[in-house]
Amino acid sequence: MTHTRGWTGRVFIGASLDGFIARPDGDIGWLTDPAPVPHRATATNSAEALSWDSFFPMIDHLVMGRGTYEKVLTFGAWPYAHKRVIVLSTTLRADDDRITVVRDLDEAITALDRFGARQVYVDGGKVIQTFLRADLIDEISIGWAPVLLGHGLPLFGFLDHDVQLRLLSSTTSGNGMVNATYAVHR
Amino acid sequence: MTHTRGWTGRVFIGASLDGFIARPDGDIGWLTDPAPVPHRATATNSAEALSWDSFFPMIDHLVMGRGTYEKVLTFGAWPYAHKRVIVLSTTLRADDDRITVVRDLDEAITALDRFGARQVYVDGGKVIQTFLRADLIDEISIGWAPVLLGHGLPLFGFLDHDVQLRLLSSTTSGNGMVNATYAVHR
Repeated sequence: MTHTRGWTGRVFIGASLDGFIARPDGDIGWLTDPAPVPHRATATNSAEALSWDSFFPMIDHLVMGRGTYEKVLTFGAWPYAHKRVIVLSTTLRADDDRITVVRDLDEAITALDRFGARQVYVDGGKVIQTFLRADLIDEISIGWAPVLLGHGLPLFGFLDHDVQLRLLSSTTSGNGMVNATYAVHR
Repeated sequence: MTHTRGWTGRVFIGASLDGFIARPDGDIGWLTDPAPVPHRATATNSAEALSWDSFFPMIDHLVMGRGTYEKVLTFGAWPYAHKRVIVLSTTLRADDDRITVVRDLDEAITALDRFGARQVYVDGGKVIQTFLRADLIDEISIGWAPVLLGHGLPLFGFLDHDVQLRLLSSTTSGNGMVNATYAVHR
């Protein structure tokens, strides 16, 4: 907890309005290919929130869990060509030289330090929760999708203390998303 | 489900960013009396979302559960002087003539019809979930508070089908709240 980091931990994730990031089977089609409902938003754009195009180029390292890694593999083209990718998994074999496999949080932190990480994209529900509980997240961007799923994988999990946030920006988009970026207050 | 209503069901609620509306013991002080963190927002106001001052006067009836009712009693002054209040409870005694106690959802719907309800404020996590599952909610306004609680009572619950929403408006306020109003798509 008192570890001095040289890097900034960031979250950038889409969630349903009821706080789910995937269906129970991991499906995110409701986010990437939403139902063809007309007029998903009658609101207009407002402030400047982080978008993928402003967020992703600033990132030099990613940390994700095995579930997120295997999801990314199904996308076809590897989207992280010029980023270093650390995958947290107790079981994954280290046979993909595009990634660095670590077994636990301490190994992940050690690897980030060794690599000289600066801007770290922390992705995947369980890894976000792990990093949040270890006070390793500085900024959280959430896109709230205009849908209720009713069950799925939770974005956030148990915390034994409140985490106070500061709203940095909020933008609505024509597809009905509300994108908000928060700083973690310390 | 095919019941024809003369009234509009509405939700207007504050939730923590991780989707909780209260702590496990029902406490909402984190919302009503938030931690004195400076600069809860550096975002500016944007579009016109429903505020309490624009929402509450349009309401003629409220439906809430026993938990919410008992919470309101602790506020001191009764805040619903000119509204009809229906409390859904299997146990509450009908000895408060400011409210109408009903035992189940069917009784609540019957009472709203009999009273000629038009604009119904559906309040409390369990009652919101009950009304949502019965397709009795037309509009949902949520204020996302800039805090993670880590555990509490969930705003939303299990649904056996997606509920598609349309973003009507979104406003950020100086205390870091993101207020969004959605229409339920049919």
